[in-house]
Amino acid sequence: MSTDGTTIGILGGGQLGQMLVLAGYPLGLRASCFDHTADVPAAIVGDVTAGDVKDAGALRRWASNFDVITYEFENFAPELVADLSEVRPTFPRVNALAIGQDRWTEKRAFDECEIPVSPFRTATTIDEVADALEDLGAPVVAKTRRGGYDGKGQAVLRTTDDLPSAAALLETHELIVEQWVSFEAEVSAIGVRGRNGDVAVYPLIENEHRQGILHSSRAPARFSGDITRQATEHLRALMTKLDYIGVLAVEFFVVNGRLFANEMAPRVHNSGHWTIEGAETSQFENHMRAVANMPIGSTAPRGISAMINIVGRAPRSRDILAIPGAHLHLYGKSERPGRKLGHVTITADDQSTLEDRYRQADEAIHNQLS
Amino acid sequence: MSTDGTTIGILGGGQLGQMLVLAGYPLGLRASCFDHTADVPAAIVGDVTAGDVKDAGALRRWASNFDVITYEFENFAPELVADLSEVRPTFPRVNALAIGQDRWTEKRAFDECEIPVSPFRTATTIDEVADALEDLGAPVVAKTRRGGYDGKGQAVLRTTDDLPSAAALLETHELIVEQWVSFEAEVSAIGVRGRNGDVAVYPLIENEHRQGILHSSRAPARFSGDITRQATEHLRALMTKLDYIGVLAVEFFVVNGRLFANEMAPRVHNSGHWTIEGAETSQFENHMRAVANMPIGSTAPRGISAMINIVGRAPRSRDILAIPGAHLHLYGKSERPGRKLGHVTITADDQSTLEDRYRQADEAIHNQLS
Repeated sequence: MSTDGTTIGILGGGQLGQMLVLAGYPLGLRASCFDHTADVPAAIVGDVTAGDVKDAGALRRWASNFDVITYEFENFAPELVADLSEVRPTFPRVNALAIGQDRWTEKRAFDECEIPVSPFRTATTIDEVADALEDLGAPVVAKTRRGGYDGKGQAVLRTTDDLPSAAALLETHELIVEQWVSFEAEVSAIGVRGRNGDVAVYPLIENEHRQGILHSSRAPARFSGDITRQATEHLRALMTKLDYIGVLAVEFFVVNGRLFANEMAPRVHNSGHWTIEGAETSQFENHMRAVANMPIGSTAPRGISAMINIVGRAPRSRDILAIPGAHLHLYGKSERPGRKLGHVTITADDQSTLEDRYRQADEAIHNQLS
Repeated sequence: MSTDGTTIGILGGGQLGQMLVLAGYPLGLRASCFDHTADVPAAIVGDVTAGDVKDAGALRRWASNFDVITYEFENFAPELVADLSEVRPTFPRVNALAIGQDRWTEKRAFDECEIPVSPFRTATTIDEVADALEDLGAPVVAKTRRGGYDGKGQAVLRTTDDLPSAAALLETHELIVEQWVSFEAEVSAIGVRGRNGDVAVYPLIENEHRQGILHSSRAPARFSGDITRQATEHLRALMTKLDYIGVLAVEFFVVNGRLFANEMAPRVHNSGHWTIEGAETSQFENHMRAVANMPIGSTAPRGISAMINIVGRAPRSRDILAIPGAHLHLYGKSERPGRKLGHVTITADDQSTLEDRYRQADEAIHNQLS
């Protein structure tokens, strides 16, 4: 068979890598993943090289097999991406990866792009945490600058009695202390920027988290056009500032009709999975197009969509498939509490049909937990 | 990784097999193909076993690795499918395969389902051909009962002077002689029937052929609801009669507001490729669902769609991807005159937008031929 298309090496072979590989096939793009083991979802749909993701030599040898390198997880050393980019063009660029790994540099980047964030202080001692609590006003949230995810590495401080929980975090991490934001909703904006500088942003997405894990997303979000415009402008400013290539996701809180940026992810994002069926071009296809120097595709919605994550236990496939407008995506992982095993996207032409189908899908998924 | 899902063996690993394998992954279905060589499109996206498709023993051994068997081409001995069905459930059933391989049994099956066909005679001698020309009235089309495809194995007879071209076909084949049909349009109907007997039919598709090869398809076809209803009823009757499992395609001619069945294909069909983006559930996903005993999905259209085949030479990918609503599908084959290398599906919400995008895509594809 012909392999004339651009070849892409993907660092990471989880479900995001799996869906990137699948999105590349029809475009003639051939992608292959690198992960610490070959027992990962991407191995079901393509090749995975198993190796030490901290071994620069192994990564360089692997990377030299491809035309371009990208990644689907962001918790590895920026030095490695900088190193890889000397072997092959590597996108997103290392600046976005590095900035996103530290809540302080992340907030500064938001600030430089005039994207509002909740007031904050950095803290390396418990006295600085106490000062921040005093200055910002209770309650505040202390977060590790690095390494936190899914709600881990955080502590809410309502009074000075809560300082010990921040002290525990300080034993291993520098912190930032943020003013508590009483948000009406959590939303995310996902955009893509091509190597020619073209930018497109998906409709705003409304997210619901449970136990710190994304439970469901709906798009387009049911907010005023003004909020959507704010999000689109913020994303566009950030991508331009960073000379970003690929798909970028930013999570925001909605507070009194304004957006406060929470965090960014320099990759395809769980809250964008609905785009496979719900947008003209999926986030996975658009990321592959962007890094392969192809024109980016339309991010316009197709009807309205919702996505529900399948976490811990899988529903009976037939229960999902029997629901009109429901699209099943299983990643091929074995069941384990708290593990993302798949997702269901529900599409419809109107809100009440969507809600009806959503209820059916949610029930089919969560009946399994009883 | 978990392999709890149903496993499916697919006879044939061309582009239809490739798209079936891709459609299975998100459902947790694991499919693998068998073909005479591993240098086939399905090998890009999954495993292909190379072997002799006439070797019953090899096929049985291969089939025993799967839960269920299906096929993506129909030019092999019905005995092999009958044999395989003793090893594993094999769908579509052998009756549909056998009937579709002989234009005479095919026409009889249409007839038994009260599906109109052009008047015809069988002929094994040139005298019988001459009698048919006389009885049916000129012009007629002589076709080999078996083995013809893409316009091959056919001769148009306008007078008795044309009989030698039929005589040439008679040297190797029995013939049927059909009354020439002066059709307004060629359409196809594609339906799916699940193992529980549920039936769903896609919107009627209008096709344009060039040099005997499908050039483009549009769906929903711009015909009266009455013609669409006829096609749906015909397909439903045929699938029920045959106790058919999987996707079935039937090509019709439109003549004075009536449909005449031309031929059937017991598999996913080129004229249904638009369903990947243009229908709620693609023909590939629905075929996989049907043979795996899952509920079949909605065949409702999403907007309006057109598909253009990429034949012989591939366009520049970026020229296609720059067109709004255009979706590129390359199969990974090397270029060769007359070879189907891929297709482009164009989606839109209204007819004039569709036509505009269609023209752009058609130009991008066919500029390459100059």
